Amino acid sequence: MNSATHSYQPISTNVVKELSDLLGASNIIFNDPERLEPFSRDEAADCETRNPELVARPGNAEELAQLVRVANRERIPVTARGAGSGLSGGAVPLFGGIVLDFGRMNRILEIDRANLTITVEPGVITSEINEALRPYGLFYAGYPMSLETCTIGGNVAENAGGGKAVKYGVTGRYVLGIDMVSPTGELVSLGGKLVKDVSGLNLLQLMVGSEGILGVFTKIILKLLPLPKASVDMLCLFKTIDEAVAAVPKIMTEGGIIPTAVEFMDRLSFATSCEYLNESLPCADAGAMLLITVDGADEKQVEHDYDVIGEQCLAAGATNVYVADTHVNSERIWRIRRAVAEAFKVFSPHQSLEDIVVPIAAIPAASAAVNEISAKYGVKIPCYGHAGDGNLHATPVMPPEWTFEHWHGVLPEILMDMYKAIAKIGGHISGEHGIGHKRKKYLAAVADPGFMLMMRNIKTALDPNGIMNPGKIFD
Amino acid sequence: MNSATHSYQPISTNVVKELSDLLGASNIIFNDPERLEPFSRDEAADCETRNPELVARPGNAEELAQLVRVANRERIPVTARGAGSGLSGGAVPLFGGIVLDFGRMNRILEIDRANLTITVEPGVITSEINEALRPYGLFYAGYPMSLETCTIGGNVAENAGGGKAVKYGVTGRYVLGIDMVSPTGELVSLGGKLVKDVSGLNLLQLMVGSEGILGVFTKIILKLLPLPKASVDMLCLFKTIDEAVAAVPKIMTEGGIIPTAVEFMDRLSFATSCEYLNESLPCADAGAMLLITVDGADEKQVEHDYDVIGEQCLAAGATNVYVADTHVNSERIWRIRRAVAEAFKVFSPHQSLEDIVVPIAAIPAASAAVNEISAKYGVKIPCYGHAGDGNLHATPVMPPEWTFEHWHGVLPEILMDMYKAIAKIGGHISGEHGIGHKRKKYLAAVADPGFMLMMRNIKTALDPNGIMNPGKIFD
Repeated sequence: MNSATHSYQPISTNVVKELSDLLGASNIIFNDPERLEPFSRDEAADCETRNPELVARPGNAEELAQLVRVANRERIPVTARGAGSGLSGGAVPLFGGIVLDFGRMNRILEIDRANLTITVEPGVITSEINEALRPYGLFYAGYPMSLETCTIGGNVAENAGGGKAVKYGVTGRYVLGIDMVSPTGELVSLGGKLVKDVSGLNLLQLMVGSEGILGVFTKIILKLLPLPKASVDMLCLFKTIDEAVAAVPKIMTEGGIIPTAVEFMDRLSFATSCEYLNESLPCADAGAMLLITVDGADEKQVEHDYDVIGEQCLAAGATNVYVADTHVNSERIWRIRRAVAEAFKVFSPHQSLEDIVVPIAAIPAASAAVNEISAKYGVKIPCYGHAGDGNLHATPVMPPEWTFEHWHGVLPEILMDMYKAIAKIGGHISGEHGIGHKRKKYLAAVADPGFMLMMRNIKTALDPNGIMNPGKIFD
Repeated sequence: MNSATHSYQPISTNVVKELSDLLGASNIIFNDPERLEPFSRDEAADCETRNPELVARPGNAEELAQLVRVANRERIPVTARGAGSGLSGGAVPLFGGIVLDFGRMNRILEIDRANLTITVEPGVITSEINEALRPYGLFYAGYPMSLETCTIGGNVAENAGGGKAVKYGVTGRYVLGIDMVSPTGELVSLGGKLVKDVSGLNLLQLMVGSEGILGVFTKIILKLLPLPKASVDMLCLFKTIDEAVAAVPKIMTEGGIIPTAVEFMDRLSFATSCEYLNESLPCADAGAMLLITVDGADEKQVEHDYDVIGEQCLAAGATNVYVADTHVNSERIWRIRRAVAEAFKVFSPHQSLEDIVVPIAAIPAASAAVNEISAKYGVKIPCYGHAGDGNLHATPVMPPEWTFEHWHGVLPEILMDMYKAIAKIGGHISGEHGIGHKRKKYLAAVADPGFMLMMRNIKTALDPNGIMNPGKIFD
């Protein structure tokens, strides 16, 4: 089923009136290019954009269901949008139609301490969840790095990852329930406040990470954990990428510890970031860095854990291990990791933030493949990301002397080379950012054909008119 | 799509010859009722049974794919069977056809220490996995209670739970990759040695728990964890169910500890079990028991954890807390839990092992509802199970003075009452045993109609001829 085979209808004035009566005129944007333009893109750089024809702000699930029934009847595309902070072009309304703004569905509905759950509407800013939970000694562990801007609905739609995924897993592990509107406009309730459930097919986890192509969420139930009472960050320098990466499974097997986070930066990444930050950390000889976080129920356990991790890293060849036992020191080492992308923007305004994921032991092979492609095209490709998960943000950066047109022509070749090389070592295209429309031609090129066929069949079965976020994941 | 609307064909002698040529005559059972009979049932008591027409033992994925292509062409039902230890009638070939025996696809293919994965064929007995891993200090945490008899393929097909699910989650959390044969006979590879992956829809977790209706597995990649180096079991007695259950979230929130296991027994369960075992544990005044396990990286951490848990239980009203610090004592308390079902068989040969799951705070309400139904029908319904997950094996036991015919007539009413009561308090039908054909009419009665419709649409899309394990989960 190709989205192009669906014929979508432009939104008629009758439909505008119908939606306006349904939601109230103030919750509709139509015929106003300036106010529609911010809804034409997300944060995926240099991607195709398009204004929606209409932006709708439903106030509740019933309004949303009615809107989808109208759209399905009239063959109008519907694209759900959280904060627009996505990195795959997933919220871009490629075929026009309606963009859903969840600005009115942004309430925390319930904190249930006895069941260790929180129930939220999709428009809640993710960081608000943990702010609301802190007084109760609870936390939601599935949040991504961008938690201060993104929304929980977007996180669930993308199955977002984050810095704590080594120990805590990604968003999906914490999603216990979803209320949604199906592509044909039915209200459907999946899961509940249940930590185990095999009452029928696992459609709940099918919806997590479905990038808005199978339905729109109206309510989300998340599982909570006790807030860790202590946490420490460590910075471990290694001469080579191989040594750094080899330390990761040893921490887990010989050390018996699953760290909270294991972030990785290659030399190009941390050197550029340190230079940008004027950071004087003595790392001239280092070829790779691991930034490791451990947390736990008390200080003593955390001390024990970082001792063991330090020993394992030194045994694996680390040249230096710094332990940041104050907030100031923690902040100093984490900002090196966080500033990488920004640092490269100084070098060049155009970069393509990728999100490859490989078996953890294949990180050196992935790094070698990326370096080979870097040399072939004469394009810097810093590699940094979540080593404990094998998830690397390999990021081709436009050489400053190139024109944008030249870059725009060459980048797809670089990416295709990279994705093919990654597939050969057992890797996939995206660990946490999703496919959207930015990566769909690469997915089609490297994914298992049987998998692609099953996805298409499911999409057609659930969305016969192809109205839900068309043009994403696959054509 | 009702299975009854599909017309299946009996297996012709031509097809028998074709399958015999494909697999070798010794890997086919046909026309031999005595050897076919063991494949007519699983361990769900008093369920409908039926002999398959043919049992096939494929040797590899390619043979299996060819077999499914023949079955799909000829409209012959195909039912995958692991050890036949399922508890929902999921492996019963309700429409005859072919039962797949995985006795030849039972190899551990690879232990990958660097990536912390194990790759297995579906016929591997689950306990063999941890036996093979022990020398490496690793373990697979997703196994169920029946690990010594069940197969890993069956565990994945049912998304089995188990005693350690509070801390470690159920089978699905550890499934990183599945190679499978689709209902139309394509070989499809999902996931890989990747701990994060959002490269397309999450069909991997859709397959986990799909009870064989969407395809057949040929290879499974499981995630491993470091083997905990220390573990302790505790038995905590409470006067009332309410007090026992209220302690569970407090251990997690105020204590900050996620125990490995929190098992629950009501008075009827443990008293009957203790009597059966001649166990003299002083529990005359107890109304409920919690059996709690903690594990960790070393003895000190485990000691700390059980101190905290003991304090929390006492603060929540526990009358006694026993800590089993030797293997003998651990065994003594665990056998009370394990012997419940057996103990009730002495009381009566017929019982219906159910598997309700509710929000953990709703366990007292679930218990009250079950007791009310027990009184209404004059049928004992002991309640025991996984309190930390809200998963209770409420088990109606036939009164010894009833005839089986009477029991057979009344049991469906008891179950329907129970499932409706459980649905009202936010619970679902099955936490770890699955729907199969034993529970499908109850699922149809209490599940969200939109959910049922989506499941049917997906089934039809992936299995247009309805050959894969027809008659399970829904009609």
